[in-house]
Amino acid sequence: MNKEMETRLDQQIAFLNEADKLKNTIRATELCDNSRYENSAEHSWHLTLYAMVLADQAGPDVDITLVIKMLILHDLVEIDAGDNPIFGDLDHAAIEAQEQVAADRIFGLLPDDLRLTFRAIWDEFEAAQTPSAQFAKSLDRFQPPMQNLQSGGGSWIDFNVTEQQIHDRVGSKITIGAPFLWDYAKTRIAAFFAAQTAK
Amino acid sequence: MNKEMETRLDQQIAFLNEADKLKNTIRATELCDNSRYENSAEHSWHLTLYAMVLADQAGPDVDITLVIKMLILHDLVEIDAGDNPIFGDLDHAAIEAQEQVAADRIFGLLPDDLRLTFRAIWDEFEAAQTPSAQFAKSLDRFQPPMQNLQSGGGSWIDFNVTEQQIHDRVGSKITIGAPFLWDYAKTRIAAFFAAQTAK
Repeated sequence: MNKEMETRLDQQIAFLNEADKLKNTIRATELCDNSRYENSAEHSWHLTLYAMVLADQAGPDVDITLVIKMLILHDLVEIDAGDNPIFGDLDHAAIEAQEQVAADRIFGLLPDDLRLTFRAIWDEFEAAQTPSAQFAKSLDRFQPPMQNLQSGGGSWIDFNVTEQQIHDRVGSKITIGAPFLWDYAKTRIAAFFAAQTAK
Repeated sequence: MNKEMETRLDQQIAFLNEADKLKNTIRATELCDNSRYENSAEHSWHLTLYAMVLADQAGPDVDITLVIKMLILHDLVEIDAGDNPIFGDLDHAAIEAQEQVAADRIFGLLPDDLRLTFRAIWDEFEAAQTPSAQFAKSLDRFQPPMQNLQSGGGSWIDFNVTEQQIHDRVGSKITIGAPFLWDYAKTRIAAFFAAQTAK
């Protein structure tokens, strides 16, 4: 191996070692079995599987390979910025500023070509303007309610969330990129809240 | 949404909920910060990132998108069969038989078209005969030593592993699909064991 390749590999491995820290970023969503909160690394894996399984819910202009790459990268900034639970009090401008600084630092560990490619994928995801980014964002909002329905409420209970708040903060986003997934979730969420009320 | 789509979504979501259990399958490798053992879901995510970052180490006939899909799916059978540490006592025939039964059950939760597609991807990975499968397998063997070098030895210490055993069980496999990655790992592993001996 020549010196150039070795220097490049040092950068690539430094980035991959840094990425390991995402396994310690804890989210507000519980595992289906209610045993613990999930972390952002395993969540990212689960979302890539959502993309493979639910590809038939994507519109015709969605590039599923790009969606998968977006989902692999989408939470890396949380290594520095942490996870911001959707039902918490969110200062969107402050979060976005933190995440931009985090993206500069974390993607900055990579060789230039990869830094530019990865940053462009992450920027496209964040901007949520293309069909692929919108579908990726929809999956990111669709997985937590699926987990909550399995775990007995999860973050809905923890944050004392109303059905209307789920419609406003989650459904309104899912429906942009995957309208049938929101139809599917909506009826099950309604049944969950009806059962809670009946208790 | 029509009844057919709803029935299909029920199957897709049942599979995705089942996949959540992979977050509870514990591996022999520790996180880089030595805080705990990693699970197979977050390991799978990390490997998809390895594939994106180290794509330039793949041979010309490797399809990186297929590699990423293989790595997303590769450990799902461990939900039933568990993780088999590479330095443990391995009954390869028994493990393979267990994993085939697991694949039948887990991929069997999917609608037929997805079951066939996913099973074909997993079968290709397991057979390790195509360039894409060989590269995916190389990454799967390359990540644990990178983690062990960070965490102070990890599974090498736990299993009292010699440098020669790493060459035999790990290096011999990495070098098939990613020879420069084994060159890179080999010198760093040698330095680690030299430092251990000097203690």
